Amino acid sequence: MSTPYPFSALVGQDEMKRAILIGAVEPAIGGLLVLGDRGTGKSTAVRGLAALLPKMRAVQGCRYHCDPQASGGCDDCVHLKSGVRVRTEELAVPVVDLPLGASEDRVLGALDLERALVDGVKVFEPGLLAKAHRGFLYIDEVNLLEDHLVDLLIDVAASGENVIEREGLSLRHPARFVLIGSGNPEEGELRPQLQDRFGLSVEVRTPTDIAQRVEVVRRRDAYERDPTAFAATWAKADAKVRRQILQARERLPVLNVGDALLQRAAELCLAVGSDGLRGELTLMRAARALAALEGADDVTLTHLREVAQPALRHRLRRNPLDETASGERIERAVAELWA
Amino acid sequence: MSTPYPFSALVGQDEMKRAILIGAVEPAIGGLLVLGDRGTGKSTAVRGLAALLPKMRAVQGCRYHCDPQASGGCDDCVHLKSGVRVRTEELAVPVVDLPLGASEDRVLGALDLERALVDGVKVFEPGLLAKAHRGFLYIDEVNLLEDHLVDLLIDVAASGENVIEREGLSLRHPARFVLIGSGNPEEGELRPQLQDRFGLSVEVRTPTDIAQRVEVVRRRDAYERDPTAFAATWAKADAKVRRQILQARERLPVLNVGDALLQRAAELCLAVGSDGLRGELTLMRAARALAALEGADDVTLTHLREVAQPALRHRLRRNPLDETASGERIERAVAELWA
Amino acid sequence: MSTPYPFSALVGQDEMKRAILIGAVEPAIGGLLVLGDRGTGKSTAVRGLAALLPKMRAVQGCRYHCDPQASGGCDDCVHLKSGVRVRTEELAVPVVDLPLGASEDRVLGALDLERALVDGVKVFEPGLLAKAHRGFLYIDEVNLLEDHLVDLLIDVAASGENVIEREGLSLRHPARFVLIGSGNPEEGELRPQLQDRFGLSVEVRTPTDIAQRVEVVRRRDAYERDPTAFAATWAKADAKVRRQILQARERLPVLNVGDALLQRAAELCLAVGSDGLRGELTLMRAARALAALEGADDVTLTHLREVAQPALRHRLRRNPLDETASGERIERAVAELWA
Amino acid sequence: MSTPYPFSALVGQDEMKRAILIGAVEPAIGGLLVLGDRGTGKSTAVRGLAALLPKMRAVQGCRYHCDPQASGGCDDCVHLKSGVRVRTEELAVPVVDLPLGASEDRVLGALDLERALVDGVKVFEPGLLAKAHRGFLYIDEVNLLEDHLVDLLIDVAASGENVIEREGLSLRHPARFVLIGSGNPEEGELRPQLQDRFGLSVEVRTPTDIAQRVEVVRRRDAYERDPTAFAATWAKADAKVRRQILQARERLPVLNVGDALLQRAAELCLAVGSDGLRGELTLMRAARALAALEGADDVTLTHLREVAQPALRHRLRRNPLDETASGERIERAVAELWA
Amino acid sequence: MSTPYPFSALVGQDEMKRAILIGAVEPAIGGLLVLGDRGTGKSTAVRGLAALLPKMRAVQGCRYHCDPQASGGCDDCVHLKSGVRVRTEELAVPVVDLPLGASEDRVLGALDLERALVDGVKVFEPGLLAKAHRGFLYIDEVNLLEDHLVDLLIDVAASGENVIEREGLSLRHPARFVLIGSGNPEEGELRPQLQDRFGLSVEVRTPTDIAQRVEVVRRRDAYERDPTAFAATWAKADAKVRRQILQARERLPVLNVGDALLQRAAELCLAVGSDGLRGELTLMRAARALAALEGADDVTLTHLREVAQPALRHRLRRNPLDETASGERIERAVAELWA
Amino acid sequence: MSTPYPFSALVGQDEMKRAILIGAVEPAIGGLLVLGDRGTGKSTAVRGLAALLPKMRAVQGCRYHCDPQASGGCDDCVHLKSGVRVRTEELAVPVVDLPLGASEDRVLGALDLERALVDGVKVFEPGLLAKAHRGFLYIDEVNLLEDHLVDLLIDVAASGENVIEREGLSLRHPARFVLIGSGNPEEGELRPQLQDRFGLSVEVRTPTDIAQRVEVVRRRDAYERDPTAFAATWAKADAKVRRQILQARERLPVLNVGDALLQRAAELCLAVGSDGLRGELTLMRAARALAALEGADDVTLTHLREVAQPALRHRLRRNPLDETASGERIERAVAELWA
Repeated sequence: MSTPYPFSALVGQDEMKRAILIGAVEPAIGGLLVLGDRGTGKSTAVRGLAALLPKMRAVQGCRYHCDPQASGGCDDCVHLKSGVRVRTEELAVPVVDLPLGASEDRVLGALDLERALVDGVKVFEPGLLAKAHRGFLYIDEVNLLEDHLVDLLIDVAASGENVIEREGLSLRHPARFVLIGSGNPEEGELRPQLQDRFGLSVEVRTPTDIAQRVEVVRRRDAYERDPTAFAATWAKADAKVRRQILQARERLPVLNVGDALLQRAAELCLAVGSDGLRGELTLMRAARALAALEGADDVTLTHLREVAQPALRHRLRRNPLDETASGERIERAVAELWA
Repeated sequence: MSTPYPFSALVGQDEMKRAILIGAVEPAIGGLLVLGDRGTGKSTAVRGLAALLPKMRAVQGCRYHCDPQASGGCDDCVHLKSGVRVRTEELAVPVVDLPLGASEDRVLGALDLERALVDGVKVFEPGLLAKAHRGFLYIDEVNLLEDHLVDLLIDVAASGENVIEREGLSLRHPARFVLIGSGNPEEGELRPQLQDRFGLSVEVRTPTDIAQRVEVVRRRDAYERDPTAFAATWAKADAKVRRQILQARERLPVLNVGDALLQRAAELCLAVGSDGLRGELTLMRAARALAALEGADDVTLTHLREVAQPALRHRLRRNPLDETASGERIERAVAELWA
Repeated sequence: MSTPYPFSALVGQDEMKRAILIGAVEPAIGGLLVLGDRGTGKSTAVRGLAALLPKMRAVQGCRYHCDPQASGGCDDCVHLKSGVRVRTEELAVPVVDLPLGASEDRVLGALDLERALVDGVKVFEPGLLAKAHRGFLYIDEVNLLEDHLVDLLIDVAASGENVIEREGLSLRHPARFVLIGSGNPEEGELRPQLQDRFGLSVEVRTPTDIAQRVEVVRRRDAYERDPTAFAATWAKADAKVRRQILQARERLPVLNVGDALLQRAAELCLAVGSDGLRGELTLMRAARALAALEGADDVTLTHLREVAQPALRHRLRRNPLDETASGERIERAVAELWA
Repeated sequence: MSTPYPFSALVGQDEMKRAILIGAVEPAIGGLLVLGDRGTGKSTAVRGLAALLPKMRAVQGCRYHCDPQASGGCDDCVHLKSGVRVRTEELAVPVVDLPLGASEDRVLGALDLERALVDGVKVFEPGLLAKAHRGFLYIDEVNLLEDHLVDLLIDVAASGENVIEREGLSLRHPARFVLIGSGNPEEGELRPQLQDRFGLSVEVRTPTDIAQRVEVVRRRDAYERDPTAFAATWAKADAKVRRQILQARERLPVLNVGDALLQRAAELCLAVGSDGLRGELTLMRAARALAALEGADDVTLTHLREVAQPALRHRLRRNPLDETASGERIERAVAELWA
Repeated sequence: MSTPYPFSALVGQDEMKRAILIGAVEPAIGGLLVLGDRGTGKSTAVRGLAALLPKMRAVQGCRYHCDPQASGGCDDCVHLKSGVRVRTEELAVPVVDLPLGASEDRVLGALDLERALVDGVKVFEPGLLAKAHRGFLYIDEVNLLEDHLVDLLIDVAASGENVIEREGLSLRHPARFVLIGSGNPEEGELRPQLQDRFGLSVEVRTPTDIAQRVEVVRRRDAYERDPTAFAATWAKADAKVRRQILQARERLPVLNVGDALLQRAAELCLAVGSDGLRGELTLMRAARALAALEGADDVTLTHLREVAQPALRHRLRRNPLDETASGERIERAVAELWA
Repeated sequence: MSTPYPFSALVGQDEMKRAILIGAVEPAIGGLLVLGDRGTGKSTAVRGLAALLPKMRAVQGCRYHCDPQASGGCDDCVHLKSGVRVRTEELAVPVVDLPLGASEDRVLGALDLERALVDGVKVFEPGLLAKAHRGFLYIDEVNLLEDHLVDLLIDVAASGENVIEREGLSLRHPARFVLIGSGNPEEGELRPQLQDRFGLSVEVRTPTDIAQRVEVVRRRDAYERDPTAFAATWAKADAKVRRQILQARERLPVLNVGDALLQRAAELCLAVGSDGLRGELTLMRAARALAALEGADDVTLTHLREVAQPALRHRLRRNPLDETASGERIERAVAELWA
C-alpha cells in the first residue's frame, strides 16, 4: 500500500542482509531466525527486499497464486487448467505478517464456515500460509508463539506444502515461502529443538557507533517525512540488488559443491558438535547460494567460511564445561581446521 | 454526554500534562504510559484535553470516520468516494475507554454475527480501535491487561493500522490514535519489553503540599456541584491550550532536528544504556513537538533536556550494581554530558 | 415479597447503621464495605432500610425505571419521551442481591439471545446493575468474587453508568446505586487496591455482652414466629428514620465544607498516609452527609471526626515497623492533630 | 421404587437419628452435616425416615408440588389458583440425591432448551432443588462438592427459596427442604466457614462392639434377601416414629424458650467461643424441637444440654494452644457452666 | 465377533480366576479390582468367562435388554409390556470395554442430539452402562480414569441403577453388571477411598517359573495362529466351568452364613482395622459364593479364610509404624484368630 | 505425489531398516519406536519402504480400502458385498502422517457434521486411522503427543481395530497398520509404560564417520536436484528388497519357534527383568519374521540374538544400583546365557 523503506538504505546489519538474500535465492535453506534487539530494522529489511523483487506471474483465479510454469500444481490449478485457456496476472511478491493473536485457523486455513452454513458444502478457506506462497512469511517475536505452531510453520516451510487434517478437511496445497522469525532472546528463548529447525540464524545488535546511530535516525526521519522522495534516492541501489538476486537464481543449478568441500563441512560440524546432518546440508546450500550471489564460478572454502556462523551458531549443544559462546567456538574451530 | 472537567483546571501534574500535549501534536510518538497513584487525575486530563480540541470533519457513513482530506482511505471511503459526492459531518474528538472485561472481539472488531446469521454475509464489525481513530484510546490499569493485548494495541498505535486475520476475516483499517495507558506500579508491573514500546512515560504522585491538596478537593467539589458553571470559569484557559496545540501542529513539519542535536541524543542514550534506537527516535520527535508547542523557531538542547526523562525513563536496564532509580541516572548523565 | 426485619429493630452495630444512612443520603460516597463476622445483621440492615424508604416514581416502560424528573435520560426514556405522554408508576426501592454463581452476563446485562435468534435483532437485555438502579446492590462475600468483577462494580457505582462493550453491543445506561459489599476477612481479604476503591468501610462484630446477645436472639425469634406483628411494633421507629433521610437529602446541597475543614482533612490524610486524594474527598462527602442527617447548620470538625474511621480505615498502607492496627493509627492521629 | 430399609431397624447411631428427627420437625434448623466412616447407614437413615412420613398433599400441575394450604405460593400456583378450581394430589415425601457429576444446571434449574429452541420462549425448567421442596436433599461426600455450590445449597436451605439469575432468567421459587450433607473428614474437610453454615453436625463411627457389628450385618443380609418381609417386621416401630414426628410438629409453635434459657445458651456460646449468633439460634431451635419430640411441656436445660454437641461442635475456632477436640471443650464448658 | 481365548486355557493366576467366578455368581459383591503387571491376561480372562456363559434371554426392543422375568422393569419394558405380547430374543452376555478417551456422555448415556435437533423431542440415548447391563464392564487402567467417574461407576455397580440428572434429562435405568477395573499400581494408585469401594481386590504377577512362561507363550502362539482349533481343544474344560457357575447361582439363595461365622468375620475386620462394615459384608457374600461354587452344603471357616485376602487386602489403613504389607497383616491375623 | 527417496539408498542405520522390514512382514509385532537424533532419515525410510511395496488390491467404494480376500469385513464391505458384484481397485500402500496439531477427531474419525446438519443422519467420517489401514502410520515426535492418544494408537495398532464410542457413535472398523513413532529422547521421554507397549525399539544416531556423512549429504543433494534420475539408479536395489518382503510374508506361517528357543527367550527376559510376557512374545515374533526375511528354514538362536536389543531395550526397569544402560545389560545377559 505505502512505500516501504528501501532495502539498500539500511545502515549496517550486513550479516542479516546477506542471510535474507541467501533465503531469496535458495528458499530450501529452511527459514531464517533473526535474534537481537528491537528496533534494528528486522521487519524493514524483509519488506524492503520483497518490494525490490520483480512481480511474479500467477494463474488467475488460483487461490494459491501458483506459477503458471509449475508442473503438477494445486487443486485450483488442476481445475483451472482443465478448462480452455489459463489466464495469468502479475502480482507483487507477498510479505505476510503473522500478527500476534492470529488464530490457528487463519494461519493454516480452515473450513469456510460461510459456505458450510449457507450452501452446505465443505470448502477450504486458505489461510496465511497460502497467502505467503512464493513470498515471505514474517513472524515477529517468534519466541512468543506456541511451540507447536512454530514447529508446524517450519514443517511447512521445509516441505513447501501445507497438510490439513482437521474439521473434516483433508487436503494439501503448495506453500513455498521464506520463513523469517525474529525475536529477542531476552524475552524468552526458543527451545533448542526449534532453533535447530531453522536454516540460518543471524544476530543483530543496536550499533554502538555514534555516527552510525545518527545516520539511522537521520534516514528514518527523512523517510517518515517524505517516503516517496526518500525511496527515489535509493532506487538505483535497490535495482542493483534485484539484478544480483535474479542472476544468482539462474546460476544456482549449475554450481556444485565438491566432495573435498563437503568433507571440510563435515569436519567442522563434527568438531563443534552440531546434532544430525542439518549443519552440513545448510552449509552446502548456503555456501552455494552465496557463491551464486557473488557470481562466482565455483563454491570455495571462503564461501563456506562466510556462512559458517549463521549456519551453525544455533545448532551447538551447550557445553557446561566450556561456556564459550557458540560464535566463538565456531570461530575457533574454523581457525583450527581450515587455517 | 456530560461536561468533562476542564483540562486547564487540573492542579499540578505538569509532566503528565506536557506529555499529553506532545501526544496530541505528534501522535507518531507511540503512546503514553502514565504511572502512579490512583486519583491523580490521569483519566480526567485526557478527557479534558479531548473536549477542548476542535471538532473534526469526517466522511459521513464511513465507519472509521476518516478525514475527507486523507489520501487513499479505508475500504468504506473507497466505496463512498466512488459515488457521486461525499458528504461530511463534524464529530467530537473521540476518547475511547477500554473497559475492564471488554472482550478481544470488541477491541479489535469482529465478524458481525447478526449479518452472518441473518444475511449469510461476512461483514466486519468495527471495534474500539476503530472508534478511537483520530482520537485517544485510554486504558486504565494497563498492567492488568493481558500482555498480548497490550502488545497488539501498541502495534496498532505505532502503525496506525489495525490488521485483522481471524474468523475468516482478512482486512486492515486505519486506527491512528494517541494510546494512553495508566497504571499503578504497586499493582504489578508491565514487562520491561512492553514498557519499552511506549513512546513516553510519566510519573504522577499525590501532592504532599497541603494547600495543593485542599485546592484539588475544592475544585473537584465545585465541579461536581455545578459542572457547567465550573467549566465556564475555565473556558478561556482551555481556549488558550487549544490554540497552542493547533499552532504547534502547523509548525511541526517545518521544524528540523540537526545532526549536532541527534549526536547529543545518541550520546545520552548510549550513556544511560537504553536498548535499540527507540530512545533517540523518541527524543527527536518529542523535542520537536515540544518546540512546536512553545512556538520556538529551532529545536534546541533545552527541548531535548526537557523530554529526556519521559522519553528514556522506562527504557533503562536495571543495573543490579547501581540501584539508582532510572530518573536519577538520566539526570546525572544529562548533567555530565550536556552541562 | 415477605415482610423484612425492621431497620430500627437491629440491636447495636451503630457504625454500620450510620454508614448505610450516609450511603442512602449521598450515593456518590462510592460504596460501602462491611467487614466482620457472619450473622451480624449486615444483609438484614440493608433490606430493612430499603423497605422503610418511600416508593420512588419511575417512567413506565423504561427498563431502568428512571426518575421522570431526570434530565437527559436513558435510551428507553429518550424513546418513550419522544411519544405523546409519559406515564409513570411507583416502585419500591430495589435491593438487588448478587447471588453466588450469578453469571457475568446477568450482572452486566447481555445480548438478548431470544430476540437475536427469533427476530434477528440485537437487543440489550438489562442485568442486575440495571435492576439496582436507584437502589442498593448487595454483595455477600465480596471477597469471594473475582477481582475484575468487583473492580467493574465499583466503577459502575462510582460513575453511575454501566458501559457495555461486548458481544457486539456498545451502549451505556444509568446505574446509580449504593453498593454494599460484605465479607469476612478471615475467608480471604480483598486486595488493598480494591478496598481503597470503596468509599466507606465499617467493621461489625458479634456482641460479647450477654444481655445484648439474648436480645438479638429474642427479637429474631419473635420476628420469625410472626413477622407482621413484629414489624408493626417497630413501624413508628422506622418512620422516624425515613423522615431523617428525606430531610437530610434536601439539606445536603446547601451544606458546605469550608477550607479550614478541608485543611484539617488533608492534614489527617497526610499524617496517616492514605494514598491519593480519595481519603479527603470521602471525608468531605461523608461529613457533609452526616451533618445533613443530624440536621446541623454547618459541617464541623465533630462530623469529620465521626467519619474519620470508616472513611480512612481501609486506605492505610501496612507499615511493617508499626503494627498498630489501622483504627488505632487514625485514632492517634486524630487525637494529635485535632485535639 | 423399591422398599427402603426401615428407619427403626438401624442399629445404634442415636445422635444421627435424633438430629434427623429434629430436622424433620424444624426444617428451619438449617441443614445437617453427618461426618464419619462410610458404610454407617447415613443415606439409609434419611431414606428410611422419608418413607415412614405420611404422604403430602400437593397442588396438581404445580412443578414445585406446593402445599395447597400455603399462603402466597409460587408462580405455578398463582397461575393455577387463578383458574376455577385447584385440584390436589398425594405425593410421597421426596428424598433427592445430588449425584456426583450432576451439572449445576440440573441442581438449580435452567432454561428449558427444548422450549427455547422449538417454541422460541424462555421457560424455566426446575432442577433438583425444586424436586426436593418439602422433603430432603441428600448430598453424599459434600466435601467433594465445589465450595460455591455448597454455599448456594445452604443459602437455599436457609431461605427456603431458590433465586435464579442466569441465562436471561430471573425468578425465584420455593425450595424448603432438609439439607443433609455427609462426608468423611479424612477425604478432605469442608472449609470452616461452610461447616458453620450447617445447623447441626453429628459424627458417626463404625461400631467397635462385635455383637453390634454382627447385628448390623445380619439385619442387612435379611433385608437384602427379602426386603418386604424385613420391612413388615419393623412396620410397627416405624409407625411409632411417625406419630412422634407428627405430634412434635403440632406442639412446636406453642413451645417457648424463656430468657433464662437463652442466657444459658449465650453463656455457653461465649465460653466455647463460637462465632456470630448462629450458635444461640440453633441451640434454641434444636432444644425446642427436641422438647416437642419428647412431648415435653417446657423447654428445659436438659434439652439444651442434649443438643449442645451437635449445635456447636462445628462452630469452634481451632485454638492452637488447646488441642482438646471440639467435643470435649463443649463437654467441659457445659459441665462448668450448667452443673 | 472373533473367537476369544478360552477361560480355562489361562495358565495360573488362580486368585484372579476365582474372584471373577465369584463375581459371576454374586454380582452384588460390588466390583473387582485387578492390580498388577500388564500382559498377565486380565482382559483375556473376563472375555473368556463371558464367552462361556450361556446366552441370556432378553425383551426384544428394550434398549437395556432386560430379563423378561424381571419384576417391575425399565421404562422401555413398561412400555413394551403394556402392548399385546412381549417378544424375546437370545443375546450373548455383554463385555463392555470402557475405552480410554470415551466421553462421559457415552459412558452414562446422554440426550439423543439427533432426535432433539430433528424431531424436537428429548430422548435418552443409552450409554456404555446400559450396554453392560447383565454382563461385565471392563476398565483397563482404572487408575487413569478421573476419580469422579470411577466413583460414579462403582455407585452404579453397587446400586444396579444408573441415575441421570443432566442436560434436562431426569431418569434412571437398570445397570447391573460385574465391574472389573484393572490397573498397574506403578502407574499411579487409586485413592484409598476408591479402592475401598471395590468388593474384591486381587493381585496378578508375571510368573517367574520358566516352564509356566514358556507355556503361556506357546498357548498364545497356538491361539493366534488358529483361534478356532485352539478353542475346540478347550471346549470341554470351559463347559465344566459353565456348569459350575450355573449350579452355584441356583445354590446361592439357600446357603446361610451363621452368626458364629459372622462373629469370626467381625473379629478379623476389627483386628486388621478395616473401616466401616464393608469388610464383613464382603467376607460374608464372597464366602457364600465360594461355597456355592464348590457345591458345599454349608459356608465354613475355610471358605471365609480363602476369601479373606481379596475381601480385605485393599481396605487396611496404612500403619506407618507397621510397614508389613496388607497381605501379610491379614495372613497373620487369620493365623492368630482362626488357628 | 512426488518421488520418495529410495529405501535402499539410505546410508547406514541398519538396525532401523531391519526393524522396519520386520514390521512390514509381521504387523502383529505391535509398533516400532525409533529414538534418536533428528535428520537421520527416520521418516525417509518409512516412505521409501512403502513406495517399493507392490500396490494392494482393495474393495472399491469401501472407505477402509479393505482387502477383497479378507473374511468378514467392515460395515462398508458387508454392505457392498451384499450387492451383485464387488469391484476392486489397486492402491498404493498408504503412509499416513499424524501432523502436529491434528485434532483427535481427525485421528479417530468422527461424526460427519455435514451429513448430520444437512441430512439429519449420523454417519461416521473415517479419520487417519482408517486411512492408514493396511499401511503405515508415522508419528513424528511421538513424545510430544498426549499420553492418552499414544495409548489409544497403540491399542488400535495392537488389536487392528478402531473402536469408536463418542458423539453418539458406536462402531468399530479395521485399522491394521504398522505404527512407527519417532522421537528425540532429549525432548522429553515417553512414560516407561508407553514405551513398553511398542513392539520394537531402535536407536539411530548421526554417523560420526566423515566419509559416511559426506556420502549422506552427497546422495541427498543428488536426490534433491533430480529425484527421478536418482530413483532410477536405485530401482534395482529396491526391487530386491520388495522380493525379500514378499517371500518372507509367504514363509512366515510355516516357521515355528520351538520350545527350546522359547525357554532361551524366557531365561533372557527373566535375567534382564522385563515386566510381563511382552518381551518373550516379541522376541518370538521378531525372530520368526527375521528368519522369514533371511529365507531361513528354521528360527535359530542367532535370530533371537539379533532381535534381542530392539525387542527388550525399552522394557527394562531402571535399576538405581546398576546404572549400566539397557543395551549393555542385554548384551551382557545374552553373553552369559547364550554363550
